[in-house]
Amino acid sequence: MLQGFSLPLSPLGKANLVGAPPWHYSGDAIALEFWTEPGAAAATLPPGLTPDPHSNGRAIALFVDWQYTGANNELLEPARYQSREFYVLLDAYWENTPVYWTPYVYVDNDSSMARGWIQGYPKRLGSIFQTRTFAAPGPAAAPIAPGTKFGASLSVHGQRLANGRLTLQQEQADVSGALGRSAINRRYFPSLSGGQHSCPIVDELVMPVNDDLTVIDLWSGDAELELPKAIGEELHELAPKKMGTGYRFSMSCSIIGLTVLQDLKK
Amino acid sequence: MLQGFSLPLSPLGKANLVGAPPWHYSGDAIALEFWTEPGAAAATLPPGLTPDPHSNGRAIALFVDWQYTGANNELLEPARYQSREFYVLLDAYWENTPVYWTPYVYVDNDSSMARGWIQGYPKRLGSIFQTRTFAAPGPAAAPIAPGTKFGASLSVHGQRLANGRLTLQQEQADVSGALGRSAINRRYFPSLSGGQHSCPIVDELVMPVNDDLTVIDLWSGDAELELPKAIGEELHELAPKKMGTGYRFSMSCSIIGLTVLQDLKK
Amino acid sequence: MLQGFSLPLSPLGKANLVGAPPWHYSGDAIALEFWTEPGAAAATLPPGLTPDPHSNGRAIALFVDWQYTGANNELLEPARYQSREFYVLLDAYWENTPVYWTPYVYVDNDSSMARGWIQGYPKRLGSIFQTRTFAAPGPAAAPIAPGTKFGASLSVHGQRLANGRLTLQQEQADVSGALGRSAINRRYFPSLSGGQHSCPIVDELVMPVNDDLTVIDLWSGDAELELPKAIGEELHELAPKKMGTGYRFSMSCSIIGLTVLQDLKK
Amino acid sequence: MLQGFSLPLSPLGKANLVGAPPWHYSGDAIALEFWTEPGAAAATLPPGLTPDPHSNGRAIALFVDWQYTGANNELLEPARYQSREFYVLLDAYWENTPVYWTPYVYVDNDSSMARGWIQGYPKRLGSIFQTRTFAAPGPAAAPIAPGTKFGASLSVHGQRLANGRLTLQQEQADVSGALGRSAINRRYFPSLSGGQHSCPIVDELVMPVNDDLTVIDLWSGDAELELPKAIGEELHELAPKKMGTGYRFSMSCSIIGLTVLQDLKK
Repeated sequence: MLQGFSLPLSPLGKANLVGAPPWHYSGDAIALEFWTEPGAAAATLPPGLTPDPHSNGRAIALFVDWQYTGANNELLEPARYQSREFYVLLDAYWENTPVYWTPYVYVDNDSSMARGWIQGYPKRLGSIFQTRTFAAPGPAAAPIAPGTKFGASLSVHGQRLANGRLTLQQEQADVSGALGRSAINRRYFPSLSGGQHSCPIVDELVMPVNDDLTVIDLWSGDAELELPKAIGEELHELAPKKMGTGYRFSMSCSIIGLTVLQDLKK
Repeated sequence: MLQGFSLPLSPLGKANLVGAPPWHYSGDAIALEFWTEPGAAAATLPPGLTPDPHSNGRAIALFVDWQYTGANNELLEPARYQSREFYVLLDAYWENTPVYWTPYVYVDNDSSMARGWIQGYPKRLGSIFQTRTFAAPGPAAAPIAPGTKFGASLSVHGQRLANGRLTLQQEQADVSGALGRSAINRRYFPSLSGGQHSCPIVDELVMPVNDDLTVIDLWSGDAELELPKAIGEELHELAPKKMGTGYRFSMSCSIIGLTVLQDLKK
Repeated sequence: MLQGFSLPLSPLGKANLVGAPPWHYSGDAIALEFWTEPGAAAATLPPGLTPDPHSNGRAIALFVDWQYTGANNELLEPARYQSREFYVLLDAYWENTPVYWTPYVYVDNDSSMARGWIQGYPKRLGSIFQTRTFAAPGPAAAPIAPGTKFGASLSVHGQRLANGRLTLQQEQADVSGALGRSAINRRYFPSLSGGQHSCPIVDELVMPVNDDLTVIDLWSGDAELELPKAIGEELHELAPKKMGTGYRFSMSCSIIGLTVLQDLKK
Repeated sequence: MLQGFSLPLSPLGKANLVGAPPWHYSGDAIALEFWTEPGAAAATLPPGLTPDPHSNGRAIALFVDWQYTGANNELLEPARYQSREFYVLLDAYWENTPVYWTPYVYVDNDSSMARGWIQGYPKRLGSIFQTRTFAAPGPAAAPIAPGTKFGASLSVHGQRLANGRLTLQQEQADVSGALGRSAINRRYFPSLSGGQHSCPIVDELVMPVNDDLTVIDLWSGDAELELPKAIGEELHELAPKKMGTGYRFSMSCSIIGLTVLQDLKK
């Protein structure tokens, strides 16, 4: 009897890329608010989502260092389960509800990439780095304090797709600027049968079910972001027209499942 | 209107991890035939496949350096589209037809990994290397000639999962020992809705539709293979009991689509 | 006029792999004390060092996540300057002084590797990971608290060379068990002229000059360590016979220069 | 008695990053001739070299897939010893002799990087890819034939530093356009003692001693090259003003040692 949650199913259930949820995360994030061309943002929306009429073009670029664990102490095998992530959240509406849409997301780990696909995050592989804060003081420590600068970058197949920078100003009580909405994703799995290449076998608008989202140590400050033009990519179509606030925070959550909102197949 | 074959769908259709087929490949392969414990091989088979009664336990470990292209000269962006692959083929039966089953497969590229999932190959990421043959003569050239040795390895998250070696003996006319059957795969995409974690939304037995499979420059020789025990992996459960013939060859093919043989969902 | 501290020297002095000291570091460390075969430890000592008669065979395996900066805000380019490191310290004597000797050290970054060579650390490239502690609570956070487990690993060219584990027990005041001695290194640069291959042009016993070494948040606990046998490596010759105490701490320091203790050339 | 040619010296001599020469190579190269601003080229020359008065500003960008072996069948461990390389050759004069100077060179392997330093090549790490030619025909094969296009790229720490392209036109008898001169390098190893940071302990103008340089299957064609501007790099200062001929060839050689031409220390 084969076991496992995802491929490869196997006799012992150890080899699968992703075990069954819940999936637990804790991480450090740099979030950079910006405004892009409203038309460029709207052009990325899937059926069922519409631009946010109050903030069309508002976006957040997030760089996160994640630690992941499932039910088997996965955090003790960091070579397999730690990961770094970059993603963009765009303001949008689902029916009359303000939500986030994620047009692009990159991670540096295959397990994270697969969890993303299963949740409807369109993850590809990339190299993501952010300045870390370390406890031992000195010029390399980047303490959480006014004036400290953090750099962050995303590269994909050797092309730099994002350069971010945050200069901390003050501790901040309100996380709603950085993480104030629910995410809506599109689960999508293509058909490969003849004549069906544009008829996906899975095409659903979904909402992740999180448990215990915790955000702590939230600071705000000055944000800078470049999304340089790159061959074979479209992230740069969302290049900032104007920057908003930058944030640095720690967050944890558990993913339990998802809710299917709409079947997009004809 | 969003474009693309796989996630991420995007306004211009450039950002997707995988474009629509046909997918064209040319590569150099080292194939090492071996026999594993028949029960261990049988334990990996999906519903619908049965052990080959004549050769249960026969397997082939393949290391391939691939070049890929789609319709847009992808081979001119080798940083994004070249890839290396390791996979195991097991002899099996589908109804009364001898076929190959692929329990485990590793690649070093996200585009290749996604193409695999769409075809039902359970691809994960790994680091794969093989000794290459170079045209300019000398001690480092590894010419296609009797006595030349080729090394090959697979590592996953920093654990060595396979060490292979081939010593060429002679040119060989018959490829059936290395690639004589059709592959049968299992397309599988999990549900993440509450209570549905063991009820995949896609679970199909499928057969890839290849076009123009060409195998040339086929040589045979002595094969060696180790599949060392590794944490969180099951490949070593298929460790060789006995080695068969080793092969080195070049091959090309185009993937056009697939045929669904059976829906495995209840 | 070419500028720079190391190769490549260049017109603007930006391209060099390593800028001039001081070099500033802040990092998080997992240190696992163990005893290896005294003869195996002694066999790695360079001329000028002798086994510690009181603790011959005592060693510490260190896994460190480092952030580095020089004079130009290098910490804001983490893709180039963050690094992870594994090294072994062995108890030894230089004249009548207890010191540490570093027979093997691995990093994941070329700039760190070059700084190592210049200081006499015999750095090679590897993949190093440790469980991190994150501020946001939950199953993936690994808080600094009694009972928390940390995993750590070193892989080199796809072979796992070290698996470590630490289970925290208590906060600890005394760092001398983990970092109580000065390091003595061997700066070594080969000749490549005909007939001179065993006559290095640089061969010096040196002591790094540190400034401001700070160790904070020191905890101790149970240590586990495996150094599995690997092809083309010798780290496993130092495999533990007995484990000592494990430590987790944060540290920072600045490298200003070094003192040459002895010229080992004939 | 410690053994080995380079660090780390070790009891068995297996762990060293680089074994003693001879070092044998075989590889496939794409070479793109171009002219840069003469002043930019001249600004990279070390003491002892002067611009070539007849071709100041002429340069060649080389992308090479290398296989390496020493005396111990290193080519059978491709995960450790295969490597890819990018370098720039500039026309220069040493006394009255036309030579090549290598201002920048990148490889993807620590052993290759260390061999470079020992020879005076200022190697850093990068990711280098070139379209390969495969034997099995089809759209992904890139055969050696008129009209075939080859792409090539260099990325360093996630920044794209070079994009090259070659379109084959004809087989070519004369390699002198691509590899017609001897290379002159600068062996350089810094001091780290206080007050000596600009007084290297090794600073020599050297000429590698090659044996058996073989170039075969030489084709020429149209060359394209971009050297995009990148943070913390200077390669783009040599951006092409005009392209020359492009070449694709296979080459092998053995490095036996080197000849010291001049000691540059004061």
